Amino acid sequence: MAVYTEVSDDELEDFAAEYDIGQVVSCKGIAEGVENTNYLLQTEQGNYILTLYEKRVNPEELPFFLGLMEHLAAQGLACPTPIKGRDGKALRNLCGRPAAIVSFLKGMWSRRITLGHCAELGPAMASMHRAGADFPLTRANNLSVAGWRPLFDAIRPRAAEIKSDLEEMIEDELAYLESHWPKTLPVGLIHADLFPDNVFFIGDRLSGIIDFYFACTDILAYDIAICLNAWCFEDDGAFNATKARLMLNGYRKVRPLSDEELQALPLLARGAAMRFLLTRSYDWLNTPAGAMVKRKDPMEYYRKLRFHQGVTGPGQYGIE
Amino acid sequence: MAVYTEVSDDELEDFAAEYDIGQVVSCKGIAEGVENTNYLLQTEQGNYILTLYEKRVNPEELPFFLGLMEHLAAQGLACPTPIKGRDGKALRNLCGRPAAIVSFLKGMWSRRITLGHCAELGPAMASMHRAGADFPLTRANNLSVAGWRPLFDAIRPRAAEIKSDLEEMIEDELAYLESHWPKTLPVGLIHADLFPDNVFFIGDRLSGIIDFYFACTDILAYDIAICLNAWCFEDDGAFNATKARLMLNGYRKVRPLSDEELQALPLLARGAAMRFLLTRSYDWLNTPAGAMVKRKDPMEYYRKLRFHQGVTGPGQYGIE
Repeated sequence: MAVYTEVSDDELEDFAAEYDIGQVVSCKGIAEGVENTNYLLQTEQGNYILTLYEKRVNPEELPFFLGLMEHLAAQGLACPTPIKGRDGKALRNLCGRPAAIVSFLKGMWSRRITLGHCAELGPAMASMHRAGADFPLTRANNLSVAGWRPLFDAIRPRAAEIKSDLEEMIEDELAYLESHWPKTLPVGLIHADLFPDNVFFIGDRLSGIIDFYFACTDILAYDIAICLNAWCFEDDGAFNATKARLMLNGYRKVRPLSDEELQALPLLARGAAMRFLLTRSYDWLNTPAGAMVKRKDPMEYYRKLRFHQGVTGPGQYGIE
Repeated sequence: MAVYTEVSDDELEDFAAEYDIGQVVSCKGIAEGVENTNYLLQTEQGNYILTLYEKRVNPEELPFFLGLMEHLAAQGLACPTPIKGRDGKALRNLCGRPAAIVSFLKGMWSRRITLGHCAELGPAMASMHRAGADFPLTRANNLSVAGWRPLFDAIRPRAAEIKSDLEEMIEDELAYLESHWPKTLPVGLIHADLFPDNVFFIGDRLSGIIDFYFACTDILAYDIAICLNAWCFEDDGAFNATKARLMLNGYRKVRPLSDEELQALPLLARGAAMRFLLTRSYDWLNTPAGAMVKRKDPMEYYRKLRFHQGVTGPGQYGIE
């Protein structure tokens, strides 16, 4: 929730003049997104999102992200499309930062997840996986199993500030995940951050997916595992197997899951919970109180991880 | 720069159903405004601003502010108009706060003030003063001369933290202003916070005025004095008499200024500088470092006040 970079009207005018989008009539900073600065840009021709990439984004990876959005949109997926300037380029500089304009996507993210939302999410995620299949670029997931131990080492000395047994729990779980992480499951393009605030709805219908800045090449079912955690738990911590069933069955109608993928879901869900437990713990310990960014509770993912440790098979996610 | 209240999609849907504005297709928190929470609301029918009034706004004064905007818009002034619900009311509740939807105004505020902006501001301000002449409600300006001493008393014990001679300077100046403040100048509806971020332009043309939540009944020329401070100084502290001349002459074409009003300008400008010196000093001393709201430097207004103390007549503001 922040505008890190103020764009002056002069700079904006010069920037917009590189595009065939008409005269700018409004440009308002959006209080969403913790990584980048986003403006809702209105021109005579329509609405756009102007993004300035702040320091947490590696500029060398931007061609991957923008190329991916362009590819997915061209395949018919409802997601933002980078707008190219008169020089054919989508990526340029504004206020000393890499910046791009993408198409505006109607819809709102849901603060209260319903069964219907989960039923819509499944097929949309599967369509995204299918649409990404022939995207030619790849990007390693630096927040998958190989990236967890360095994060653990960084939080380890202060882990007890979050919970007394956190260090021990991560220690044991990490050893298990490292030795059991699947190596033969289908791999492809995954979103890797498909939380409710990145999925838009108009009424009950899913209208689009945004924020591909964690997208990478990884186990496809790992994306599903992230969503099991992000969409199928209630605020009180209860796992809602009906939501999981609707999501998984919706997914399977568009992209069938092999038995190997289904059997791996509990393990992948533990890994997905570990990933967010680690990054949230890191942010929790390294974000000063009173900072502009609201810290997210790592313990939410500690509890989700504990839940999946007790799952003995995919049937407990509501499917046959 | 903040969204203080998160509106859920359910609450928003129920709220919007009270209006004839069509289905909501997007709602994004805007990172502008330090007093209230603002959303850019898009429906099938167009764009609107949804405002939730936070604790610094007195709910009892909202009918004045909303009534004023409605009045000014009806007079042809380019400003937001409150949208009435099916029950004929513009003001209702959302998330436990007073809330209203107003029309969306195209344009952007200018980060770099040009001579042309000042030339446009003058007649727009004068038109606003004329349009407000027959508005039937009144509201005292609690931040005019009678309100300054209580503010001074509040900051006095810690004034030296800002500048060693600040207490003495305000003490002397306040005594002077209290004994010389004009009592016979024309009074009417003033905006009282007509800073550049409240005035929109499209290209070089003024497209509208927003944020009437400090509007009140006070000396009309005091509004001009606020603008002399807010629009006619350069970043290095230099007073730009050409900007002042263009603003004042533009104003006088729409609403002539009496000789008494012109002669009072230096005093009114000292008063306007005092008002913002006091409120900024108060906020400076009472806003914790690292808070969500960026503190504004009170010393900017200390220097502006010093400048006007040296002005001997309106000629120094560039006019004859």
